[in-house]
Amino acid sequence: MEYKFSTIARTQDSSTVREILKLTQGTGVLSLAGGLPADAFFPVEAVAKAYEQVFRLGGTTVLQYGLTEGYIPLRERLTAMMASQGISVTRDNIIMTTGSQQTIDLVSRVLLDPQNTVLVESPTYLAALQVFKSYDANIVSVNTDTSGMQLDDLEAKLKEHQPKFVYVIPTFSNPAGGVWSMERRTGVVELCRKYGVLIFEDDPYGRLKFDENLNFPSLFSIDQQQGGDGHVMYTSTFSKTVAPGVRSGWLVANQTIVRKVANAKQSADLHSSSIDQRALSELLDFFDLDGHIRTVSTEYHARMLRLTSLMKERQWEGISWNEALGGMFMWVTLPEGFRSNQLLELAIQEGVAFVPGQVFYADLSGSNHMRINFTHTDPSLLPEAVERLDRALKKYAEESLVKSVR
Amino acid sequence: MEYKFSTIARTQDSSTVREILKLTQGTGVLSLAGGLPADAFFPVEAVAKAYEQVFRLGGTTVLQYGLTEGYIPLRERLTAMMASQGISVTRDNIIMTTGSQQTIDLVSRVLLDPQNTVLVESPTYLAALQVFKSYDANIVSVNTDTSGMQLDDLEAKLKEHQPKFVYVIPTFSNPAGGVWSMERRTGVVELCRKYGVLIFEDDPYGRLKFDENLNFPSLFSIDQQQGGDGHVMYTSTFSKTVAPGVRSGWLVANQTIVRKVANAKQSADLHSSSIDQRALSELLDFFDLDGHIRTVSTEYHARMLRLTSLMKERQWEGISWNEALGGMFMWVTLPEGFRSNQLLELAIQEGVAFVPGQVFYADLSGSNHMRINFTHTDPSLLPEAVERLDRALKKYAEESLVKSVR
Repeated sequence: MEYKFSTIARTQDSSTVREILKLTQGTGVLSLAGGLPADAFFPVEAVAKAYEQVFRLGGTTVLQYGLTEGYIPLRERLTAMMASQGISVTRDNIIMTTGSQQTIDLVSRVLLDPQNTVLVESPTYLAALQVFKSYDANIVSVNTDTSGMQLDDLEAKLKEHQPKFVYVIPTFSNPAGGVWSMERRTGVVELCRKYGVLIFEDDPYGRLKFDENLNFPSLFSIDQQQGGDGHVMYTSTFSKTVAPGVRSGWLVANQTIVRKVANAKQSADLHSSSIDQRALSELLDFFDLDGHIRTVSTEYHARMLRLTSLMKERQWEGISWNEALGGMFMWVTLPEGFRSNQLLELAIQEGVAFVPGQVFYADLSGSNHMRINFTHTDPSLLPEAVERLDRALKKYAEESLVKSVR
Repeated sequence: MEYKFSTIARTQDSSTVREILKLTQGTGVLSLAGGLPADAFFPVEAVAKAYEQVFRLGGTTVLQYGLTEGYIPLRERLTAMMASQGISVTRDNIIMTTGSQQTIDLVSRVLLDPQNTVLVESPTYLAALQVFKSYDANIVSVNTDTSGMQLDDLEAKLKEHQPKFVYVIPTFSNPAGGVWSMERRTGVVELCRKYGVLIFEDDPYGRLKFDENLNFPSLFSIDQQQGGDGHVMYTSTFSKTVAPGVRSGWLVANQTIVRKVANAKQSADLHSSSIDQRALSELLDFFDLDGHIRTVSTEYHARMLRLTSLMKERQWEGISWNEALGGMFMWVTLPEGFRSNQLLELAIQEGVAFVPGQVFYADLSGSNHMRINFTHTDPSLLPEAVERLDRALKKYAEESLVKSVR
């Protein structure tokens, strides 16, 4: 039969990243596209022990329905973890989700009516843009540079659009890998408070610091220090610190918001896996997560340095990038006029993949950028990946030349 | 600050059942309200072994991101399980969800625009009504008797409303515990095909049969036998056959629908717990699930008989109920004019809880019904539960008398 899908479903395609990942699976293509952590560092033994303890200690209640808000002992532990990051909350300010992707979806669900405005960085997280679109939001980009959102543009757009919230990734962002300055952090918090607008702070990567001594306070903690009364909603996840497979993220917010999100979650899926949550709670009891995060961050740092050194050797003309201070991504700027999605086609022919920049822009600008992930590809393969990228860039330049001559 | 929630969030309250469960927790109230399976029968040892195997056999990939559609070997096993129930599909017709609640949410998301109509049984599953409302659907009840939806009323409403789909629980329904006749099953499938309308078949309880020899073919299998081309979407779950804690349900549907649901799920949470799914796949390899379901069903049958025999002894005037042929619920009809939500207040004072009938009706009619769960309360406590219910009924009658005299 012919199906009549909803307006949302008709516009909702599979994500570009996902399609690239599919294209490259099992083909020998070296993928710098996905946002995947390095499998090799997953603490499988510790996680296995944690699940074993859940069943050994938990009895039959482990398998019964759980609370929509999540397993209480895990939320208690998260309270302590948040406190160590300058966020002072109780467990009633926390709700567990199936990863921060679900946090973004549920927060959008309880806040966005069609045509409500959301302000975002340019560029910003692709899958957040997809969620906001699925709620028919009016997505407006705020001018963003390497220090964060530009305050004058933000203020103009707060006034003009009266947005429902401002969505930001201030630390080691996806895709640009950047870090906001303190001035921009405090500035954005102050402006949003001035105009009575919520901030939605997404922080999946903040703990993957390449220099332990660096400190980037969350907007949530800044708002609290300044005596704010709940202007910031904060989400993070265990996907990048423990592993994506444990499928557990969380929202920290004012209780009023948490209660609304809990109602929405009850309707969406009753609750996330409580076995995963119980296992995380056990894990945090015996596992040195801080030490593990240091190990992983050190390795990611080394991989990033290896990749950038290989890229520098190539002496590509007019191509620049940031050296990330943490996280999982580098943001490469190609010469003006380059179209990274066309480059990608050539790159896949050569056997290497990345994500073209424009998908990270609400207005699809930024076509002369590409996002490169440095955490998932085995370091021994990086020379070959850069070699292939080099060939693709040369082909692209040749083809452009041919076109311009014609 | 003052939050401006979305229209949906402002109407979305915590469910009645959930609030009753909260009220009764730790108070000594005997709850016949929740839809919980009996903890005592959860196959904890087998499940624990399954998780252990996942980590022992799986290596690091166990902890990496998984497919949105779900773990392939589990979907392969489900294909075989579905075939044994007369449903012939491939794994591409199956997508895994975080329980059938999420299936209902995602199916609604890809099909419903605001004010689209959904036809439902009266009464029907409360949390499905909540989902449909959250998509601003126009929910229309079809006249329903103990044999299922009435075909003449269904046809009239298919013509009048041109609904997006018809949501049904044909076997051991929640809340009424009933079973549709073969005539109604085939009739509904034929009518929906005639009018080009999808059927959404929810089947969480179908395998909990009290008589093994009874056979109630799914609408999906009937549609297939009649050569239909994808008029039925079918959802089931492991919550009632293995345990709710494994948080895994699935949708079976035409590939076009499955792909749309996958796009929606990608935006909603990327994927459900793959550790839970891998464990279920391992479990199905060595565990006698069919035998386990027989054991549990036999016990549930005994509990239902015990409860109804205790109720019969009371010789309540004008109160009737169905004797369930399977599933987890009994549907009690009180005398005309009784308001079961007022009775519930008295019942909780006496120390027993149930769910008042009207919450299961799209139009909030049916106030002289109550839903009683017979699976979760320990059988030794059933005499006391009925005793308390008896006291509440007597109080209610007295108070009604006083009011009517005044």
